[in-house]
Amino acid sequence: MTQTHINRKNIDEMDKRYRVNFVNSLPGLKSLNLVGTTNAQGQENVSIISTLTHFGSNPPLLGYVSRPDSVERHTLSNIRELGHYTINHVAESFYKAAHQTSARYPRTVSEFDAVGLTSELRNDCKAPFVAEAAISMHMQLAELIDIPRNGTVLVLGEVLDVYIDDQLLGADGYIDLEAAGTVTGSALDGYHLPQKLGRLSYAKPDREPSFI
Amino acid sequence: MTQTHINRKNIDEMDKRYRVNFVNSLPGLKSLNLVGTTNAQGQENVSIISTLTHFGSNPPLLGYVSRPDSVERHTLSNIRELGHYTINHVAESFYKAAHQTSARYPRTVSEFDAVGLTSELRNDCKAPFVAEAAISMHMQLAELIDIPRNGTVLVLGEVLDVYIDDQLLGADGYIDLEAAGTVTGSALDGYHLPQKLGRLSYAKPDREPSFI
Repeated sequence: MTQTHINRKNIDEMDKRYRVNFVNSLPGLKSLNLVGTTNAQGQENVSIISTLTHFGSNPPLLGYVSRPDSVERHTLSNIRELGHYTINHVAESFYKAAHQTSARYPRTVSEFDAVGLTSELRNDCKAPFVAEAAISMHMQLAELIDIPRNGTVLVLGEVLDVYIDDQLLGADGYIDLEAAGTVTGSALDGYHLPQKLGRLSYAKPDREPSFI
Repeated sequence: MTQTHINRKNIDEMDKRYRVNFVNSLPGLKSLNLVGTTNAQGQENVSIISTLTHFGSNPPLLGYVSRPDSVERHTLSNIRELGHYTINHVAESFYKAAHQTSARYPRTVSEFDAVGLTSELRNDCKAPFVAEAAISMHMQLAELIDIPRNGTVLVLGEVLDVYIDDQLLGADGYIDLEAAGTVTGSALDGYHLPQKLGRLSYAKPDREPSFI
């Protein structure tokens, strides 16, 4: 297979749109989630993120990257204000609506209404859940970490509650993402369904991995 | 659809293994990459990560989460020492070998040899590439950011070089991950192929998204 070598000078000289597609393709496939927030006046907001990442299981800690100058700015300012937010897996049944939340709506417009998703309040969480999601979490802000290199902010939160469709949770704690219809993303605008190859046994030096 | 509500007390009281599967399932589908490093003595190391995340395109900035107490510790200490490393997409053709790199081999063992992957040096990069990968990057360490909440470290790096199979790069900079055979992960041990739903047009408030 012939390979192309693209060096840093090539990347720096790319047309902006080309570079954004290219560099956003580099990590590989991404998680896709909707973040639900509200401000002190009760104005709800929902926006798609592709950077949600596991930071630890005990305590359960998830982080995502926010650009202060992007459409996520309402979300970030709501999270600062309230300290709570929701995270909801994007599924095949509503991924087009999820994508549409990235449009630059005015602050007074609820993206729930604009894109046709259903806002739902649960228990004591003031931030809205996406009713259509099979897997949702109530998050409490743990820390905002500034990334000086490019002015982004890492939003770290602890999982307080998980809501999950009954049949998705396996006997060993593994969640069946194919059955959930959870989608995965590429670059800025690619959407994909997962097709399971299998689960592999815990790796040990003295044996080959096998399917579990 | 009936949903189960799992609260924080339930999570804290889970059996450790169950909790690890459960919380690692929560972000959704994950990128899977191999990090290639070497130490000052030329001892090579390669290990799988599932947390590689896009932090920015200009400069091209990618980050991943390292646990100092895990098998990734050799990788992290090599990155501290050398300041350079490689990132290589995990593909269907070698995902079992990639999984096997997570076994706790002694420091003197090269995981390349142990799992049957091919180490390859390219240009001026001292860290080894995975020859089998269709998409690889030479990274320069930008910053190590400590996460006080749980003692993990965010490894932030700038992309210096990209090596990519010729036919994968589209006219607009988008990389075809299905054609690359790039896989995506769930929890700690689930492997999946992507099945493309489509790419959606740039979202604007006054129109519905369409396929591009």
